[in-house]
Parts: sequence; C-alpha cells; structure tokens
Amino acid sequence: MRYLIKFSYDGTNFYGYQKQPEKRTIEGELEKALYSINNHKDTRIFSSGRTDRGVHALGQMAHFDLDVNITLYKLKCALNSLLPKDIHVIEAKIVDDDFHARYMVTRKTYKYYLNMGEYNPLMRTCIYQYNKKLDIDKMKNAIRTFIGTHDFKLFVSKEVVKDNYIRTIYDAKIEIENNIVVFTFVGNGFMKYQIRNMVGTLIKIGKDKLPVEMIEKLLKKEVSDKYVYTAKPEGLYLVDVSYK
Amino acid sequence: MRYLIKFSYDGTNFYGYQKQPEKRTIEGELEKALYSINNHKDTRIFSSGRTDRGVHALGQMAHFDLDVNITLYKLKCALNSLLPKDIHVIEAKIVDDDFHARYMVTRKTYKYYLNMGEYNPLMRTCIYQYNKKLDIDKMKNAIRTFIGTHDFKLFVSKEVVKDNYIRTIYDAKIEIENNIVVFTFVGNGFMKYQIRNMVGTLIKIGKDKLPVEMIEKLLKKEVSDKYVYTAKPEGLYLVDVSYK
Repeated sequence: MRYLIKFSYDGTNFYGYQKQPEKRTIEGELEKALYSINNHKDTRIFSSGRTDRGVHALGQMAHFDLDVNITLYKLKCALNSLLPKDIHVIEAKIVDDDFHARYMVTRKTYKYYLNMGEYNPLMRTCIYQYNKKLDIDKMKNAIRTFIGTHDFKLFVSKEVVKDNYIRTIYDAKIEIENNIVVFTFVGNGFMKYQIRNMVGTLIKIGKDKLPVEMIEKLLKKEVSDKYVYTAKPEGLYLVDVSYK
Repeated sequence: MRYLIKFSYDGTNFYGYQKQPEKRTIEGELEKALYSINNHKDTRIFSSGRTDRGVHALGQMAHFDLDVNITLYKLKCALNSLLPKDIHVIEAKIVDDDFHARYMVTRKTYKYYLNMGEYNPLMRTCIYQYNKKLDIDKMKNAIRTFIGTHDFKLFVSKEVVKDNYIRTIYDAKIEIENNIVVFTFVGNGFMKYQIRNMVGTLIKIGKDKLPVEMIEKLLKKEVSDKYVYTAKPEGLYLVDVSYK
C-alpha cells in the first residue's frame, strides 16, 4: 500500500533534507522510523523535493510503500512517537500505487520571513534577523517581475546542471506585519537556491544597492549573476505542495 | 554611573535566570559580558526579578554600575557583541544612583502562549504545544477571578516562604489567534510559579476537569492546593516591566 504524508520540520539541527551517511538528516530520520514500522524492512521515502540545510517546512509531502497493515491514525501516531521533536507528521493518507510525491507536483508555495525590527533571540532560527529597515515599495515593485514563465538560470546554484531552467511563477508577493516581511512565491517548481537567490537579490534592491530593473535584466540574462545574492536559509519555509 | 538595560532572551538553553556555579545562566552570561566592559572588574547586575528555567523574556530589565565611561550606543553594541545569540540587549539608559531595578517595579506584564492546533516543531520551545481544544469561554470566565487584590499563597511554589502572599492583579485576560491561546497577566508583582500555576489551573478548567468557581475557592483558601497545576515553562514570557 502506498501512503502519502504531510509533515513539518524545524531545519535548524539537520544537515539538510537528503540522507547522508553519519549525518542527522530529515530523510534519514523518516526512513529510520519507517524501518521500525514496516517490520524492520528498509523503506525508501520519496519527498516532493529536497530542502537545503537550515530551511524549514510546514507542509512538506512524501510517499512510501508499506507491507504492514496499519490504520492512518496509527501510522501518524507511530511516526510521531518514533520521530524526533523537530519533525512532525500532520496527516497520512492512502494514494494510488502509481502516485509519486515528486513527479506529480503541480505547485509549490514557499514563504520567506525577515525581521526588520529589533533582533529577537526567540526567533533567531526561524525568522531571518536582518534588523534594519528596507524600502518595501521598491521590493514590491521588483518582486512582481518574477511572475510568469522565465529562464531562472542566473538565480540557480551553479552546482546545478539542467537542460532547462524555465519555470513558471504563478504568484510572488510581499506582505508586512509588525516589521516582519513575508515573501510568498507560488510556482510549478523551484530549483536549488532559487528562492534564496530571488529573496537575497530583492533585499539588495530594498537596501538601494540594486535598481528595481535588475530583476528583469537577470531574467533576460542581460547581466551576469554577480548581481545575485543568496539569502540565509533560516527564513525559508516550504509551506504547501499541491497535486492534481 | 548606574545603567538600566532592557533585554530579551530565549530561556530554552539556560539553567534559569539566576547565576549558579558551572551552569549556563542568563545572569551569569550578563555578568561575564559586564566584567569585560567594566575593565575586568566583577560587576553585579540586579534584574527586576528571576525567571524560572525555560521561561523567556521580551522585556526584562536590570541595572548595574560601571566605572568606565561609555556611550549608551556603545554599551548596547558591546553587550550584544559579547553576549551569546540567545540574549539580546534592546536598550540601555542612564538612571539615578538610587534607582533599583527590582525594588522600584510598579507593574509587570507576563504572557503565556499555548497552541491548541497541530503540533508545530518550529514553535516547540516558545509556545506550549498542548495540541488539543480547550473550552475558552470557561477559561475567560475563570481568569477574571484573578483580577484584584488576593492572597495567592496556594498558587505559589511551596519552596517559597514569605510573610505576605498578597498581590494585586490589574488585568488578566485570554485572547485567541489562529488556535494560539494568549494569556496576559498584569500585576504589581508575581511570585515563583504563580503565573504557571494560574495558567495550569485555568487549563484544567478549560479541559472540564475543574469548575470555573475553583479559582475563587483557591484564592479564598476554601480548598487545598491539590487543585493547582503547574503549566510548562516554555509558553511563558516576561514582556514588560514598568517603573515610576
């Protein structure tokens, strides 16, 4: 039987999502828990995609197959009792045998939180502590440029080699609440560092270090990626993954 | 010169506020930083009061005397560069030589945050993860009983021996935002465990394990303290301290 789970995690104390020998990773912890539940059988888990080290999730999704018969309620409880406190399964459901948590994604939503106000020690691992004012109007103008179908090559980590860097962003916006700047990006898929690079470059615009038009120039590859900056990971959250 | 600082801290990784040999405490870290600033002279710091292990602060206050001449801006920067990331000085000011951060307090505000919704791994150390529904109307009725001048003996830790357990609560209320219950208490002073015991007992009322009238019976000492429950520390914040 194939199961799909929705789960959240605090990325602070993990070496990223992807399993690595001898490292504490989210995938590693999940597979350890599934090994116990699935009669001590190695059980692979397939997520909607990796998140970088230090990045969080409120609505990550993953599928796996179990040989054992277990109710959804018991599966959720068993996972949460076996998992460490920084990972939590929100929901479990049964899906078709040909469902795939990565290949069938239709849209993903990420949010990035930045604090323009006083440093807050309680939020140091879950909101980027920028602690200075930004020109929000400029950033609001600039972020709109990302909406649509573009070649995001200059916003992607150089480690990544792909045939195709074209992706569609359905929505991109900035909201403010009590000095917290919330960036939201909804798209059909995002590549490694793409969101952190989009946010980092927007921050430079908000600081008046780059003009609003730089986003368009980067998307059109009229300039080099030396104008692209990477925002810190701790402000970033995968908040939603949608399927057909 | 006597200085007063306003500071915040994440209580998670401290053995409480009060200095203890060989333990990481908030007072210990502050005095270590002041030792460096004050020409390597032992410098005592006097706060508005201790907070228990695991309790946080957004607006704690403390005073100390310095021999060195330093601007307020430089003092704030020096403290923040010497202090660990989980303590932050928000503001520094000069006060009269007879000012005392503890004895001159006129009111203190505490808040307690409880999550009735799904467990959130990101908020596990800063919002109490109760993760079940509570009867908010009952709790709102019950919390009002605390307002006024009462003998809080049954709500205070048994370790505490005082001549007088009479304190005044100016305001006590419950607000809800997205499944987060926020308890606010404003009073002229609170004793050890008093707020955690008030909140813990209110939670029992919200769970229908105790009647609303129990608060009044406890304040009047018509019943024993066996009906008093202590809420976990991680939801509690000292948010404001006022002086004349």
